[in-house]
Amino acid sequence: MRTSIATVCLSGGLVEKLHACAAAGFDGVEIMDADLVAAYESPEEVRALCDRLGLGIDLFQPFRDVEGVDEATFADTLRRAEAKLALMQRLGADTVLVCSNAGTATVDDDAVAADQLGRLADLAAPYGVRIAYEALAWGRYVADYRHAWRLVQAADRPNLGTCLDSFHILSRGDDPSAIREIDGRKIYFLQLADAPALDMDLLSWSRHHRLFPGEGDFDLVGFLGHVLAAGYVGPLSLEVFNDTFRQTDVVRTAAHARRSLAWLSDRAGSEVLAHPGAPEAVDFVELAGADLAELDETLDLLGFTFRGRHRSKPVRLWSAGDAHVVLNEQFRAEAPHLAGLGVVVDDAGEAAARAAALGAPPVFRRTFAGEQVLRVVAAPDGTEISFGGAGSSWRDEFTGGADRPGALGAGAVVDHVNLAQPWQDFDEAVLFWTSVLGLSSGASTEVPGPAGLVRSQVMRTDDGTVRIPLNMAPPTSPLPAQHVAVRCGDVVGVARRARERGLRFLPVPANYYDDLDARFGLPAAVLAELRELDLLYDRDADGEFVHFYTPTIGGVFLELVERRGAYDGYGAPNAAVRLAAQRAQRAVG
Amino acid sequence: MRTSIATVCLSGGLVEKLHACAAAGFDGVEIMDADLVAAYESPEEVRALCDRLGLGIDLFQPFRDVEGVDEATFADTLRRAEAKLALMQRLGADTVLVCSNAGTATVDDDAVAADQLGRLADLAAPYGVRIAYEALAWGRYVADYRHAWRLVQAADRPNLGTCLDSFHILSRGDDPSAIREIDGRKIYFLQLADAPALDMDLLSWSRHHRLFPGEGDFDLVGFLGHVLAAGYVGPLSLEVFNDTFRQTDVVRTAAHARRSLAWLSDRAGSEVLAHPGAPEAVDFVELAGADLAELDETLDLLGFTFRGRHRSKPVRLWSAGDAHVVLNEQFRAEAPHLAGLGVVVDDAGEAAARAAALGAPPVFRRTFAGEQVLRVVAAPDGTEISFGGAGSSWRDEFTGGADRPGALGAGAVVDHVNLAQPWQDFDEAVLFWTSVLGLSSGASTEVPGPAGLVRSQVMRTDDGTVRIPLNMAPPTSPLPAQHVAVRCGDVVGVARRARERGLRFLPVPANYYDDLDARFGLPAAVLAELRELDLLYDRDADGEFVHFYTPTIGGVFLELVERRGAYDGYGAPNAAVRLAAQRAQRAVG
Repeated sequence: MRTSIATVCLSGGLVEKLHACAAAGFDGVEIMDADLVAAYESPEEVRALCDRLGLGIDLFQPFRDVEGVDEATFADTLRRAEAKLALMQRLGADTVLVCSNAGTATVDDDAVAADQLGRLADLAAPYGVRIAYEALAWGRYVADYRHAWRLVQAADRPNLGTCLDSFHILSRGDDPSAIREIDGRKIYFLQLADAPALDMDLLSWSRHHRLFPGEGDFDLVGFLGHVLAAGYVGPLSLEVFNDTFRQTDVVRTAAHARRSLAWLSDRAGSEVLAHPGAPEAVDFVELAGADLAELDETLDLLGFTFRGRHRSKPVRLWSAGDAHVVLNEQFRAEAPHLAGLGVVVDDAGEAAARAAALGAPPVFRRTFAGEQVLRVVAAPDGTEISFGGAGSSWRDEFTGGADRPGALGAGAVVDHVNLAQPWQDFDEAVLFWTSVLGLSSGASTEVPGPAGLVRSQVMRTDDGTVRIPLNMAPPTSPLPAQHVAVRCGDVVGVARRARERGLRFLPVPANYYDDLDARFGLPAAVLAELRELDLLYDRDADGEFVHFYTPTIGGVFLELVERRGAYDGYGAPNAAVRLAAQRAQRAVG
Repeated sequence: MRTSIATVCLSGGLVEKLHACAAAGFDGVEIMDADLVAAYESPEEVRALCDRLGLGIDLFQPFRDVEGVDEATFADTLRRAEAKLALMQRLGADTVLVCSNAGTATVDDDAVAADQLGRLADLAAPYGVRIAYEALAWGRYVADYRHAWRLVQAADRPNLGTCLDSFHILSRGDDPSAIREIDGRKIYFLQLADAPALDMDLLSWSRHHRLFPGEGDFDLVGFLGHVLAAGYVGPLSLEVFNDTFRQTDVVRTAAHARRSLAWLSDRAGSEVLAHPGAPEAVDFVELAGADLAELDETLDLLGFTFRGRHRSKPVRLWSAGDAHVVLNEQFRAEAPHLAGLGVVVDDAGEAAARAAALGAPPVFRRTFAGEQVLRVVAAPDGTEISFGGAGSSWRDEFTGGADRPGALGAGAVVDHVNLAQPWQDFDEAVLFWTSVLGLSSGASTEVPGPAGLVRSQVMRTDDGTVRIPLNMAPPTSPLPAQHVAVRCGDVVGVARRARERGLRFLPVPANYYDDLDARFGLPAAVLAELRELDLLYDRDADGEFVHFYTPTIGGVFLELVERRGAYDGYGAPNAAVRLAAQRAQRAVG
């Protein structure tokens, strides 16, 4: 389907926005009146630029405060409209968005409203302009899309139709299924926006918190299904007012926006991307840096087995069960950090094709003869994602390691990989992991850390085999460390052996154990063992969670976890303690 | 009155917070349980540190989920409570905040709730601990402070009282006047927080958006009046959950917090600051930098009169009517910027004393014999505020200037001074201008600029003679330029003469005038004149506003404005156009 985007979604001046929209592959744009007003370029220049860039001007918007007014006011409305119709003619735009009156309406009478909309349409007809009338969620008398459609029907003009905006419909909790009853030819335009579930006034929610499809809590796939079932054949257009996107890089945001439509139209069945299925497992985690000796030692003390060096690169492999950690020293001067992860997929070629179609930048990796070719793309934060098949042979490229299994049992797996996101890229990351990897948004929490609130959003497969918590750092603080959590069957035993072998743990405050006792009333022996081994504990109705952390090495640390029963969380009540302890360790270390 | 603050208001670890609270001059603290849990320091160490710092531990908080539960649950509640009472004994804290049950309550029965609160108080008695029971605004069965007080009365224990929190009462719109009917001796604690008027769920509003008194929309002066009238003699304590303060410098935020209590207790009549009255006028604006020749030229072309050089410093004075602009080149390598402003006050000594009592840092200025001594303090953004009397003679220190009046008439005055604020200092700035200068919060707007939304909050005297719009920049963008707006009686004439003399204006897009015509239907000659002279225009029910801007010089620009009729705004609809034009000029210039 044709794709479009409102210029108000993006930062910068109008010309920059248009270039970015074209570069991102949009077919058209909605030109926001205010963006044109603030531009030095004449309407003719804007029209010619759009022509050159291959962008249609699919909508001019908004024109406000039309219907439900007294006749004197309406006369001025027609005067205002005529000026904008003349402007549209210069611009070469043939559809204008008229939103329901939220400002000047004083006459609550459908006959008056329909009459005034009809007269506006008549004024527009000689200009070749169509009126797309939309119910604003906070319109004075018209706030429901079904009401707007009734007025359009009542006015019954050949150039008067309706515009549907997912936000205005879903934010009110209105049932979108009645969209199917609208004549699709009379749906002149479709504006799409997602949003987080927030309990606040509609206007503020709309103006500040809209998101691109796939990033919020609205069921846009279902919504779009209704619109397509009605027979709508116009563009899918994004209108997303968002405080963050207004200030982020325009080229990047436009690409991000375009990805959301590719995902949505694919999900709604109108575009065909490759469908490799959800990842089946985390194949490996890659830690990189100039000198990773401290990580070698930590992995050894934790009970990982050294599997050897790569035969052609300064790369080492440590394994415990199905948890594989690759240490990559192909870097000159970087501190240790989490550089990437591999996921097992049914068909790596399909997965890479899907990622490419969604605009994920491919990453080149030099591969020598006989080596496994990995398909790699970069996530928005630069983390490299490798797609490998289940029978992938890349581990055979490592030689000279030990055969003995380490103290970490055969059942060990990567439980989750925690990635820190700059605050302005957070929503883009949610969409990336949703669309490219097929993960879903799981639990979301806010952790009060010593440097500010940290928002955490888990992206995961339904079965929980792949879990990627995304942490959003507060704007003023540096990116927090990232970490790899390895799950095992006996975290107490692992901790005890590691302690005996000399591993340093992230020390947990004694006050924490007093509080644990107050909260859970654990048996004294259990509490003493937790306290002795710097283990953290959580419990809910489903089960228990016991875990510990290594100190931070460069920008990365490791966590060992054990899930007991059906516990499905991440020890969220302990996260604030962990953040405070890490901060205190930085201060002393 | 005694002042206190909850540790949750501040960033950092518990020890840092305590040091910052002491440095800011607080008498005591509320220790948040979670802050202690995350600290390595034992309760005994925290107690001893507070002793050394002279901080009382006025409250331990919170203890949750007490009343309205079944007996099995309550047995566990008493077990939990006993652990925390033992902790309080180690800490030396004698009052615990118990908030109404929002989590586990299942029994909606006042008799049960009162009985359980009573039994908790009985448990606490041997520990010498008082229970301060507070109605959370979102408590399951108890959400109204009057309800909490009825339960306290019903339980009737010598160590059970209530805690009042301004947020929980005012956010619900509850009438606070019934506080006067509470026995003041049974108000064990008072938590104060301001907040902006937001229409959102109470929990999110409370957790993210509280402000220090004087920064929001609550009537805390009235609220405190009721509490004092009830006979409350405990501490005034701040409990402000705020996403920004959680991440800003702890020492600065503590000082900022302390200032809010000084202001509030003064307003409520319980502390005596100097009361110099509101400023009567802007005496001068100071622009500083290494080379201000371009500003000299701009002021000259605008019709200011050169009044001469200062007799001992590299400082020049330009005047037009009562608008005085000081150009200060006592700087080595700085770009031109807005460095300060002088205000006329009735008693400069009183004003400086008030500023000092409110913790505003004094600024030293070297003064030679016979020169006017100015009292100067720094605003949070570093802008220097000078207090001068109406008959101040500082202008006599400038010699060698012209006597002829410039083209700008005798009626010119400084209309407003627009200061850009880093986003994390915005609320502190509002409090500074409120408390130190006695200004009030006027109009607030959000302007969609090309680099993000700019929030603007006007601080002003009631009569409008002093107006300081504070602009908050988006987090990712550099601080916007600041500006001085000079009001005159004939801005068209001023613009025309300046244009003829060669002044460059900030060029206004032609599209803007087409839109102006569409919106207002101005007479063609008026529109042509506006267009010719790059003048901006606004109109409302009270009058008209015509204004223009100079290009930005370093980090500062000038605006000339004319107010017609009773127009009291700032041309807000034009702000987005101005921001876009300035950005475009930076790109080409």
